Amino acid sequence: MAKSRKPAEQVEDVELQGHIIDSLLLPKVLDEILTHGGSYVIKEIRLGQRQVDPSFARIEVRADSAERLDEILDAIHDHGAVSTTDRDCAYEKADIDGAFPENFYSTTNYRTEVRLAGHWVEVEDQEMDCGIVLDLAEKKARCIAMVHVKKGDPIVVGRQGLRVMPAETTARQHLFEFMSSSVSSEKPKGVTVREIAAAIRRTKEGGEKVLAVLGPAVVHTGSVEHICAMIRRGFLDVLFAGNALATHDIESALYGTSLGVWLDRGLPAEEGHEHHLRAINTIRRLGGIEAAVKKGVLKSGIMYECVKRPVPFVLAGSIRDDGPLPEVITDVLVAQDKMREQIKGVGFCLMIATMLHSIATGNLLPAWVRVACVDINPATVTKLADRGSHQTVGVVTDAEPFLRALVHELGDDKMTR
Amino acid sequence: MAKSRKPAEQVEDVELQGHIIDSLLLPKVLDEILTHGGSYVIKEIRLGQRQVDPSFARIEVRADSAERLDEILDAIHDHGAVSTTDRDCAYEKADIDGAFPENFYSTTNYRTEVRLAGHWVEVEDQEMDCGIVLDLAEKKARCIAMVHVKKGDPIVVGRQGLRVMPAETTARQHLFEFMSSSVSSEKPKGVTVREIAAAIRRTKEGGEKVLAVLGPAVVHTGSVEHICAMIRRGFLDVLFAGNALATHDIESALYGTSLGVWLDRGLPAEEGHEHHLRAINTIRRLGGIEAAVKKGVLKSGIMYECVKRPVPFVLAGSIRDDGPLPEVITDVLVAQDKMREQIKGVGFCLMIATMLHSIATGNLLPAWVRVACVDINPATVTKLADRGSHQTVGVVTDAEPFLRALVHELGDDKMTR
Amino acid sequence: MAKSRKPAEQVEDVELQGHIIDSLLLPKVLDEILTHGGSYVIKEIRLGQRQVDPSFARIEVRADSAERLDEILDAIHDHGAVSTTDRDCAYEKADIDGAFPENFYSTTNYRTEVRLAGHWVEVEDQEMDCGIVLDLAEKKARCIAMVHVKKGDPIVVGRQGLRVMPAETTARQHLFEFMSSSVSSEKPKGVTVREIAAAIRRTKEGGEKVLAVLGPAVVHTGSVEHICAMIRRGFLDVLFAGNALATHDIESALYGTSLGVWLDRGLPAEEGHEHHLRAINTIRRLGGIEAAVKKGVLKSGIMYECVKRPVPFVLAGSIRDDGPLPEVITDVLVAQDKMREQIKGVGFCLMIATMLHSIATGNLLPAWVRVACVDINPATVTKLADRGSHQTVGVVTDAEPFLRALVHELGDDKMTR
Amino acid sequence: MAKSRKPAEQVEDVELQGHIIDSLLLPKVLDEILTHGGSYVIKEIRLGQRQVDPSFARIEVRADSAERLDEILDAIHDHGAVSTTDRDCAYEKADIDGAFPENFYSTTNYRTEVRLAGHWVEVEDQEMDCGIVLDLAEKKARCIAMVHVKKGDPIVVGRQGLRVMPAETTARQHLFEFMSSSVSSEKPKGVTVREIAAAIRRTKEGGEKVLAVLGPAVVHTGSVEHICAMIRRGFLDVLFAGNALATHDIESALYGTSLGVWLDRGLPAEEGHEHHLRAINTIRRLGGIEAAVKKGVLKSGIMYECVKRPVPFVLAGSIRDDGPLPEVITDVLVAQDKMREQIKGVGFCLMIATMLHSIATGNLLPAWVRVACVDINPATVTKLADRGSHQTVGVVTDAEPFLRALVHELGDDKMTR
Repeated sequence: MAKSRKPAEQVEDVELQGHIIDSLLLPKVLDEILTHGGSYVIKEIRLGQRQVDPSFARIEVRADSAERLDEILDAIHDHGAVSTTDRDCAYEKADIDGAFPENFYSTTNYRTEVRLAGHWVEVEDQEMDCGIVLDLAEKKARCIAMVHVKKGDPIVVGRQGLRVMPAETTARQHLFEFMSSSVSSEKPKGVTVREIAAAIRRTKEGGEKVLAVLGPAVVHTGSVEHICAMIRRGFLDVLFAGNALATHDIESALYGTSLGVWLDRGLPAEEGHEHHLRAINTIRRLGGIEAAVKKGVLKSGIMYECVKRPVPFVLAGSIRDDGPLPEVITDVLVAQDKMREQIKGVGFCLMIATMLHSIATGNLLPAWVRVACVDINPATVTKLADRGSHQTVGVVTDAEPFLRALVHELGDDKMTR
Repeated sequence: MAKSRKPAEQVEDVELQGHIIDSLLLPKVLDEILTHGGSYVIKEIRLGQRQVDPSFARIEVRADSAERLDEILDAIHDHGAVSTTDRDCAYEKADIDGAFPENFYSTTNYRTEVRLAGHWVEVEDQEMDCGIVLDLAEKKARCIAMVHVKKGDPIVVGRQGLRVMPAETTARQHLFEFMSSSVSSEKPKGVTVREIAAAIRRTKEGGEKVLAVLGPAVVHTGSVEHICAMIRRGFLDVLFAGNALATHDIESALYGTSLGVWLDRGLPAEEGHEHHLRAINTIRRLGGIEAAVKKGVLKSGIMYECVKRPVPFVLAGSIRDDGPLPEVITDVLVAQDKMREQIKGVGFCLMIATMLHSIATGNLLPAWVRVACVDINPATVTKLADRGSHQTVGVVTDAEPFLRALVHELGDDKMTR
Repeated sequence: MAKSRKPAEQVEDVELQGHIIDSLLLPKVLDEILTHGGSYVIKEIRLGQRQVDPSFARIEVRADSAERLDEILDAIHDHGAVSTTDRDCAYEKADIDGAFPENFYSTTNYRTEVRLAGHWVEVEDQEMDCGIVLDLAEKKARCIAMVHVKKGDPIVVGRQGLRVMPAETTARQHLFEFMSSSVSSEKPKGVTVREIAAAIRRTKEGGEKVLAVLGPAVVHTGSVEHICAMIRRGFLDVLFAGNALATHDIESALYGTSLGVWLDRGLPAEEGHEHHLRAINTIRRLGGIEAAVKKGVLKSGIMYECVKRPVPFVLAGSIRDDGPLPEVITDVLVAQDKMREQIKGVGFCLMIATMLHSIATGNLLPAWVRVACVDINPATVTKLADRGSHQTVGVVTDAEPFLRALVHELGDDKMTR
Repeated sequence: MAKSRKPAEQVEDVELQGHIIDSLLLPKVLDEILTHGGSYVIKEIRLGQRQVDPSFARIEVRADSAERLDEILDAIHDHGAVSTTDRDCAYEKADIDGAFPENFYSTTNYRTEVRLAGHWVEVEDQEMDCGIVLDLAEKKARCIAMVHVKKGDPIVVGRQGLRVMPAETTARQHLFEFMSSSVSSEKPKGVTVREIAAAIRRTKEGGEKVLAVLGPAVVHTGSVEHICAMIRRGFLDVLFAGNALATHDIESALYGTSLGVWLDRGLPAEEGHEHHLRAINTIRRLGGIEAAVKKGVLKSGIMYECVKRPVPFVLAGSIRDDGPLPEVITDVLVAQDKMREQIKGVGFCLMIATMLHSIATGNLLPAWVRVACVDINPATVTKLADRGSHQTVGVVTDAEPFLRALVHELGDDKMTR
């Protein structure tokens, strides 16, 4: 593997800054360079003396061909390594509706900047698995979903003139002290509840919104009253759920059962399996959830409290839905857009007992929104993290006792808007 | 609780037939009567001498009020107990679009008959959680989803003149010998594969269709080739899946990765997390999956084989979808209707590694279609059964080695249509 | 399969009594007869009018050979079907120490009677997977583990003169109203806690003992205080655990950590992974747990409270143990015998977060001792039931919040002995 | 938090070498220093140019008191940071049998050296959660379990004169290319099988032993033949298991069932639940497994093949055992010692479907023995890693199809010793 003759060796300097030691970005970048057959010289390294101090590294990257160098630069780009050669970002005009140009830049959920006319501009509406569309006149950039592309939109291509900031997100000044990658049910639970309660308070105090993403097991396990208490006291600002959560919530309000099981006795009700369908039918006859509240038929439960306060909700449809309830959005692309609207201003997200809605919400959230994902099944949390929602704290526990303790911990305060 | 004076005792005879011992229906009916405060006299009982012989019981049900008697009759009706007093079924005309009359009869997935003008008529399109709409002129009846009801439709109400046949379904002449309610990974796996292979053969030989419902883990675990072999040999007739299965299948065809992991090496590819989005973009640019096959860009994989043979597929959208691919149906109600169309003629359904699509399909299938649900997570199978798909055999195992063994077991035969 | 000529048809009458409808014993017995190629005539059937009333059936069993008849009688015997031909039980003298005669009767955990000199005698120390040893002089019988057999012991062989009473156990007058075979995390949790609290109270009021079987996750999740409260208030009478529970409990008392994680902060302690080993070493240096309490070194926690009250405990060793603590019984057969001693008088058993000790305890308990098995992993509960501990109510939930709620539900009462 | 006056600032230089970037040791050390309130100056850093090249760092650690400095040095010691001030290790003589001196050094499973009379000496029998006993005359050191300490043994205390080498183990030259911390069932399975087969071959070719640790699900799932094939072809050299694996293996050899389920049909056998007890009884009557093979009663299965080849086995008892079989070691400390003996020379360990024995074996193995832990339950793998067995590759899959594929991949070769 003699490297003595390097006929066409290529060199480029890159910079890396932020919590690059703490967040393990520097070793990852060095590793990527070596893995791709390149080599490096660390030309400058300044390590922060305290955890909160940012570090800085300038690295000379070498490769034996221009192709290889590009490959390396692409690979380390997502870890925050930016070429020191300042060039504006490149773009192409979309040639058709609903698709990007072939070489489009695919976004992460980390904070990203593009260089436009010599200035670094933050990308708005940061969201993973999108493209970046430019507003050339206003010198602005924002994430855009593939389906929303219009012919002629200037779409960013390649990685030139782009920088991502993973280090900011992965540094240790976490919303949660106990942030941990490992998902285990064998953790002290009192602490976890206290930390999440504190995070919710801090979010509210910071003027940001708290988003709840709830699955039907919230109702089945008997947690409706806990969510209602959180809504009444002002600790939840937005709700994402599906037809099932709303249906079983309404079933429990109208019949006292969830999936046909008496919530106060834990026993199946006669013909209880029909209750959810009758509940949906009743609401459809009345013209919807809000109408049912107005007409005095729906008098308690999560959906009732949402209508009352009001807390905006997005009920997104799925193919396993019965009915569905009139407020359910049956087109999934429309539902995604409604969720995108409501996500603005969210600072904390509490996901409970739903894999589908949790992953869908995780797809839309920028990396700096903290997420607690509570599920009795460790697989839900693992999947969320595998799909790029690294800011997630997984709590493997049971919904009802968790929520009971959380409401207790939040105390009797009421939050004002 | 003195029962000496029975001022208004009500009496009605009911009949129960089929495999009522074997399927435990008789004890359940007796238990329901007692639980509801009624009493009974078994007036006649004929027990089948062999398992395949049907049994028969005539039971006098007594209650101390008409209301209580109705309650009892309702409760035992779903277990197949039918009043011997022959009356036609009752109906009401729907008063609005998209909802049933309040007292509508809510269907099960068991075979059901209604009495129309003195004759018992089988309900068509049997599906759980629907209503029954009558064709009074043609003396026909069929299941109808709530959302499809039109004002004026004659909808069956109450339970009079209706009979359900759970005993037929739950009797022991199973498609699978090893039918078992318990879900465990600790079962001999070779047997399971053999039985499922035999069931698939029997289904095809009986002229019925085999439906596959697949989740993306089929691709992640490296099982694409196994599904392709089944399609090519004619063992799969219909495919239900979502955007993810199709996307990762196409990702693997175009890039050799699934969710960015090299399928041949198990290592993450550089920028591999972008592959699925680039795959979707490429297909959208080409105008769809079928177009991509026609244009020679998509040359292998599950979707390719579906287009080639052809095997009809329904790709149903969900809110976690990126893209989506052009063939994905983004409105969930439209997707359900497409699935309903394709379900006709299905005799066997193989569900692998998807909770969402499995439950959705289970909702639509009549109880006599046999289902094997293969998932490494026992919770998927448990949920399917909890939601009424009792005909399901749960196989807790890993998708790839299961499919490898299944393809081996099916052998080299090719099925013709 | 012509059955016209029945050259050697054999006939025997069997009786079945108790809650044979409710507990599904009658259908099971009929099914077994048919499955084995026999046939039957129901000669008499008296069904209880209410759930609490026992039923009775006399059944004539027919088979075409003596061998087949024996096979059938064996098969239905475990379901409680007893030949009406009264004969004493048969026995053989053990020919060696530590093993049964080849044809030994293998016990269940149901109440069992043997016929000795014309009288039905209840078998003492009922335990599954044992033999029955007779005291011919005293006309007594008791279960005996294989390892305890001495040469010359009269051991029951065959099934003649034996009757088991599964119906008593499986009838519906349960300690728990919500008794359910299905294991699911999607159940209302408040109810479950209330029912278990009520069962514990009822057990204590009935003068029986409450046994706790605890795994180390009880400590890891921060539940030590809850168990301590139960001990101090007199709700726990016996403790079964392993080295790990005791070690981490002592670790938390001495260091404030469990497996090295601070219980009050949820963060790993420096060198925390050494704490458990140092805790064991400290206790070994002091001469044991009791000595450590006496010397004032161990001043809180579960083991401390056990010593103080005192609550007898059995710490059974396992091959994954570090240390172990001096009180740990390292020979598993000795540990089993200690557990057998302590099980006498137990009326209720609460198993939390340990598969090994739960299954071991389940092996030893008679079927009429009610068991609640609490684990966040559904597999533990499923396995317990699969191995014959059918009296178990599985609660899929998290240990800490469950115990917190249970202690709250038990209230401030103190139980006296 | 003014740090201007540093009345008693303490300084010490430490060195760190090996794959300290790759294995993330450097950032961890820096982080520990800051977390403990210290500060540092990186006095020298040499980064390896290629992955295989070791790196080196010399760091000046500062703290404002001697106590704090000690605390920091302790904390970073386990990450491989060694004081450059060379001093011999310290020791104390054990003051009692069976326990260490209070300040004993608690071992990891990484390679460790102690400085004795000015020379660095490698510690033998490396094992986590032990102490180190010195042979002062021979200048040797080895790990010793607490229970084996004899009064007067010189036991290492503190961290002075000790160095651990985590970097060697965690560097990327893995036995498995796909080494990954994340545990997921969604991985390509064909690759995994190929890599494990290659690792087994490489181990054998390198003259090291392959150890199998097996749970009873190996039998229940029908995998006996696969293990037998591996034994016959020389791919397994040692077996660790419990009474259950051996019992069900023998049950399947004698009766064709496992836990009473026919392995060829997947259906429960009549009185099948007794088979395992009868199997144990038979073997006890014959005097043991080896005797049963010699006498021609036991003619197939895993235990048979072990006796035949011979492959040494350790059957360790547990409190859930029935019987047990005569070869089962009922004292867990004796069993641990037998396992320690057999572990010498093991280069690869395959753990299948047993949490208890896997964790027990993981406790005993040094970190450089590669481990593949195959279980359908992700929790088993997670627990193993949580308890310090970081060298473990977790494979979430089903035992039978995994083993079938592994045997296929190993091919028809026979390994000689």
